[in-house]
Amino acid sequence: MAFPKQVTLVEVGPRDGLQNETHIFSVSDRVQMIHGLVDAGLPVVEVGSFVSPKWVPQMKDSDLVYEQVRKIQNVRLPMLVPNATGFEAALRLGVREIAVFTAATDGFTQKNINCTVDESFERFQPLIAAALKEGMRVRGYVSCVLGCPVEGAVLPERVRDVAKRLYDLGVYEVSLGDTIGVGTPVAAQRMVEVVAASVPITALAVHFHDTYGQALANIFACLSLGVSVVDSSIGGLGGCPYANGASGNVATEDVLYMLNGMGITTGVNLEGLLTVHRRVRTLLGRDLPSKVARAKLG
Amino acid sequence: MAFPKQVTLVEVGPRDGLQNETHIFSVSDRVQMIHGLVDAGLPVVEVGSFVSPKWVPQMKDSDLVYEQVRKIQNVRLPMLVPNATGFEAALRLGVREIAVFTAATDGFTQKNINCTVDESFERFQPLIAAALKEGMRVRGYVSCVLGCPVEGAVLPERVRDVAKRLYDLGVYEVSLGDTIGVGTPVAAQRMVEVVAASVPITALAVHFHDTYGQALANIFACLSLGVSVVDSSIGGLGGCPYANGASGNVATEDVLYMLNGMGITTGVNLEGLLTVHRRVRTLLGRDLPSKVARAKLG
Repeated sequence: MAFPKQVTLVEVGPRDGLQNETHIFSVSDRVQMIHGLVDAGLPVVEVGSFVSPKWVPQMKDSDLVYEQVRKIQNVRLPMLVPNATGFEAALRLGVREIAVFTAATDGFTQKNINCTVDESFERFQPLIAAALKEGMRVRGYVSCVLGCPVEGAVLPERVRDVAKRLYDLGVYEVSLGDTIGVGTPVAAQRMVEVVAASVPITALAVHFHDTYGQALANIFACLSLGVSVVDSSIGGLGGCPYANGASGNVATEDVLYMLNGMGITTGVNLEGLLTVHRRVRTLLGRDLPSKVARAKLG
Repeated sequence: MAFPKQVTLVEVGPRDGLQNETHIFSVSDRVQMIHGLVDAGLPVVEVGSFVSPKWVPQMKDSDLVYEQVRKIQNVRLPMLVPNATGFEAALRLGVREIAVFTAATDGFTQKNINCTVDESFERFQPLIAAALKEGMRVRGYVSCVLGCPVEGAVLPERVRDVAKRLYDLGVYEVSLGDTIGVGTPVAAQRMVEVVAASVPITALAVHFHDTYGQALANIFACLSLGVSVVDSSIGGLGGCPYANGASGNVATEDVLYMLNGMGITTGVNLEGLLTVHRRVRTLLGRDLPSKVARAKLG
């Protein structure tokens, strides 16, 4: 097993996490949350998205959030961009990193963004080109890499093709998302191995949901192949509206606990995460899924 | 990675699970639960224990439970035996398999059974000999293999010494328990590797608690070394009274989901487990930790 010595944790709580919560966080709550996450040492924190507040009211005023955190040093603060309108907003705001998203299956993109995978590429191909020309970094998400709520099983080769297309367009990192959390570790390894034959493994991130409790096992399995970027969400906030069960994103605290135990460097400290966890829990008025937080905070 | 083709799931819910619940299950509830678990295909179901009902009221009348399930065919039904009195009860009852328990640390045995590790061996050494003479199978538990609530870190060599002592006494299988759930996968692998240098890996089981969410990752890591026996508890019932947090034993459903995804044979079917889960949940009047059950049952 060739574990990386260092892992980059990409915190998706303020965007991917909050966008699936019914409670809507104010701009100042989100700003405080992001500051707390940066203070905990997270090197990448997804700030928000330029989707229509009509569809995702939780992400309303993401531009105001961004304006209040943009000056934080030594941290990457990607903003999710779904289309040309969103890209123009990012451009006006001077965003330095954007994220685009598609899926391995037409079934999911149709349901999620009302177009095929090919059509999603038509949408963001010019957008990626323009972003790169402006000196922005572009991150790409691929959903449904281990299963699709519409199509069921997903062949690793389909994931590879979509990931490679994104990478060839100039995306610096492709985040492979098990959106409905159905994956298990050997399947996750097979998928990563197939993708890594076409996209450098250093340009791959894994994004697991804990719907069936498999996220940490899947992450461990992928780390053993050399994957060194892991998406996670404070407390395990969020989830997929098309997946069963209460569980969503794997909790940053639980991933960090595992990485610490494996002697892998992240630069993130658990106490800092727990400080943010406490505040988010209070705002939501309910316990979050992170088991480490539950064990530490009671 | 050399995963086993087949894994034996040892269901500890009716004993290790229930003994840590405040709700006390009646004899008939426990009998129905055990029948359900056997019907789901579990090859080993721990039935109860001969501890004093003064200390563990949840296990009261374990003999009556055993009498009602003893005739089930093709399944092993171990009973936990803490001392000579318990052994005599097992003998009278015609129990075919017993389990004995100790720990890797004196700190834990002192707290748990009021004696040192050496003294615990003095207690059950004659008991194991007598059991073997009677043709019984004896299983051994070692607690605190990856950390102790009293002593903290535990060296793998201490676990190895205790495991080997048990094995040398004629115990057919040693269950290595991360009683407080603090272990992470590489530490778990190191521990198993050290123990397996002295005890055949085919005679080792792993017993993980999910207190910090690490159980499935730890199991996966140990399976990759060839471990092929895994203890688990329906729904994730139970836990350790000396460990923080709500989580106890890893849930059988979640382990099975992972093993199914890995193509590993167990003979256990998830639907059968969910049937038992539903009944136990109703009796307890609360949700159980299993994420698979939550995703499947809502």
